Amino acid sequence: MSITVSRDRNHRYSVVTSGEALSPAGPLRTVLEDCAGELLVVVDEAIWPGRGARIQALLSGTPHRILTLAGGERNKNLDAVLRVVAAMDEVRVLRRSSPVLAIGGGVLCDLVGFAASIYRRGVPYVRVPTTLLAQVDVSAAIKTGIDHNGFRNRLGAFWPAALTVVDHGFLATQSVEQISQGLGEVFKLGLIASEELFGRLARLSGDWTPEWFATDPAAAELMNLALEVMVGELSEDLWEQDLARRVDFGHSFSPLIELRTGLHHGHAVALDCLLSASIAAGRGLLAVDALPEIAAVMRRCALPVRHPGFADVDLLWETLTEVTRHRDGAQHLPVPIDLGKHAFLEDLTRAELAAAVARLRQVV
Amino acid sequence: MSITVSRDRNHRYSVVTSGEALSPAGPLRTVLEDCAGELLVVVDEAIWPGRGARIQALLSGTPHRILTLAGGERNKNLDAVLRVVAAMDEVRVLRRSSPVLAIGGGVLCDLVGFAASIYRRGVPYVRVPTTLLAQVDVSAAIKTGIDHNGFRNRLGAFWPAALTVVDHGFLATQSVEQISQGLGEVFKLGLIASEELFGRLARLSGDWTPEWFATDPAAAELMNLALEVMVGELSEDLWEQDLARRVDFGHSFSPLIELRTGLHHGHAVALDCLLSASIAAGRGLLAVDALPEIAAVMRRCALPVRHPGFADVDLLWETLTEVTRHRDGAQHLPVPIDLGKHAFLEDLTRAELAAAVARLRQVV
Ligand SMILES: NC(=O)c1ccc[n+]([C@@H]2O[C@H](COP(=O)([O-])OP(=O)(O)OC[C@H]3O[C@@H](n4cnc5c(N)ncnc54)[C@H](O)[C@@H]3O)[C@@H](O)[C@H]2O)c1
Ligand SMILES: NC(=O)c1ccc[n+]([C@@H]2O[C@H](COP(=O)([O-])OP(=O)(O)OC[C@H]3O[C@@H](n4cnc5c(N)ncnc54)[C@H](O)[C@@H]3O)[C@@H](O)[C@H]2O)c1
Ligand SMILES: [Zn+2]
Ligand SMILES: [Zn+2]
Repeated sequence: MSITVSRDRNHRYSVVTSGEALSPAGPLRTVLEDCAGELLVVVDEAIWPGRGARIQALLSGTPHRILTLAGGERNKNLDAVLRVVAAMDEVRVLRRSSPVLAIGGGVLCDLVGFAASIYRRGVPYVRVPTTLLAQVDVSAAIKTGIDHNGFRNRLGAFWPAALTVVDHGFLATQSVEQISQGLGEVFKLGLIASEELFGRLARLSGDWTPEWFATDPAAAELMNLALEVMVGELSEDLWEQDLARRVDFGHSFSPLIELRTGLHHGHAVALDCLLSASIAAGRGLLAVDALPEIAAVMRRCALPVRHPGFADVDLLWETLTEVTRHRDGAQHLPVPIDLGKHAFLEDLTRAELAAAVARLRQVV
Repeated sequence: MSITVSRDRNHRYSVVTSGEALSPAGPLRTVLEDCAGELLVVVDEAIWPGRGARIQALLSGTPHRILTLAGGERNKNLDAVLRVVAAMDEVRVLRRSSPVLAIGGGVLCDLVGFAASIYRRGVPYVRVPTTLLAQVDVSAAIKTGIDHNGFRNRLGAFWPAALTVVDHGFLATQSVEQISQGLGEVFKLGLIASEELFGRLARLSGDWTPEWFATDPAAAELMNLALEVMVGELSEDLWEQDLARRVDFGHSFSPLIELRTGLHHGHAVALDCLLSASIAAGRGLLAVDALPEIAAVMRRCALPVRHPGFADVDLLWETLTEVTRHRDGAQHLPVPIDLGKHAFLEDLTRAELAAAVARLRQVV
């Protein structure tokens, strides 16, 4: 006897931008109204001091429980997921109609999403991302996960948040460095996929502030464009059937450096992009002159253009080897070949990598 | 700005029956041949003594690593999943082309499936179920999971095994009691969904042996029919969009009894079916006379017809309350109203439940 079953599962998610994420009449209203039972709200410790009172006011009419968790890559682990699961047990989360609400940075969104994906084989969740990185990148994605056993995002699931509410107002309390972390992913996207987006970064005023990102319509336009381009990229292939993905640009040499040196994801991504551009230049796919120009845009975004991890050829090669496994044994290394254009390399050698590192030392 | 994305993800899986699961020329051949890298094989401790040599012979041409794990509900936990994950890290499982192979009972299949579902956000796995229960029920399903924090299957995912190979030969080493555990799920299915299947159970010879199940064509026919009916039931709604499911028959009062008393899943399911039948009788949906007839078929399957847990109205009610949460707040209690027919109750009362328990004490 031989039986084959083939079925399609529909997944649907919405992302809305709103300055009223924490208003009782804002986009979360129906989520609160429709919640049957106690609502679990997981909040980033970093935003509780400034926003706790508004969150409590928002929830005043809804039976709820609040769990606060620390952000930061070090906290993106199984322990934190199990704390969320324990809280879900306590409020007795239902299968469909008492979604978990996550309010915080990318780390918190990723780990709450993972908890939701495995609880009862998947329950709904709703996100309010509070960092620039989470608003322009995590928001567009359906990936959840945690770091485990020394590997980034080793455990996780594809599990879309039913609703993501992006409110730029949260960005006012971010530091310049944190904003620049988010700009790292925007820079990546612009360089590989959107000349328009890259142009906007190149024209950023030299003295932007987090307040500007939180309040200025021009900043909102930039971030909305980034989110739109990102959704467009990801929704072509939500489950990554094709493992040669240009949105993986910047994610080939960075993962182990982040875990081992504590360099932030967004900064590591940007440095990885620069290194990849140098590799492309070594192959004549990109003008060597483009490298200092790219570095200039990075500086405008307050992104670092050097880091010891990106001078460590052993570590870079080890990371690429590990990433290759995640790409099922192929390098699929995205490199820019012009603004908004790309190619995939499949045969990078260690010597080429070392030469690309040396080239950057000279020209940047 | 508001963006909604809606996409379908295809899932596909095959179940084949074969007496040659462990033959180098059998249905696993292509899995072994196509494996890029080291193959991780997770084997049930119970079958290693009898089948270890054949498994090693089968794998002799394939780079591999073997991890043995104990079966039994007590071992269906996060620790075991993390051991599988650690082994996956060791063999460096790729994203697509080095599937994990699970050979064992339902517990092992469920937990290896869960590990595969969360590793790199989902990698393929292949199953060789070795108990009757796993062959007729788990095989048909795409559910994976583990028990956690005192709840059955609290964490898990819907994640189909790419291939499941059912070889009845494994059943020769099961005890009569273990075979009867599997028959508990077959009995459930027959009573609620297939008169033909129920008839076959009613006509079982009184002195069947595990050897008979392992070798007799009539037994194979019975098990194949059960598998087919089960696939038919599940594939109508693989992701349980509709939470009123007749295959949940037998799974409404059993979960906490299993966890707290150690009563086996298959036996608990059968006792739950009998109790549900008694509830139906109390509402006049089923003739009271049917109850001793149903119990007679259970005895023929070597299933228990009494258990202290099923006389404990407090515990039964607590379980139904918990199960109701898994059904998103509705009882959706499946009860038989005739052979192969069913209804869902939504308003069972504690008094009715107590009366149903008392009724069974009298008539069975
Ligand atoms: N799911 C995806 O597809 C996806 C995409 C990109 C990145 N990521 C993940 O996102 C993570 C990085 O996200 P991140 O940069 O938001 O990190 P993060 O969540 O650690 O946030 C950075 C720091 O800012 C704090 N913080 C949060 N909101 C704040 C606010 N409004 N004001 C001040 N401080 C605030 C946090 O507590 C943390 O200390 C990485 O783990 C990365 O893997 C996921
Ligand atoms: N995924 C699903 O949809 C689904 C469906 C039904 C049941 N289940 C799960 O299946 C589990 C029960 O499965 P099970 O009954 O196979 O339990 P099990 O895996 O614990 O096996 C029972 C015992 O038999 C041993 N064993 C395995 N193969 C053997 C063999 N050939 N000979 C002798 N002994 C052998 C095991 O080591 C164990 O000690 C439960 O946890 C239940 O939740 C899952
Ligand atoms: Zn990233
Ligand atoms: Zn069952």
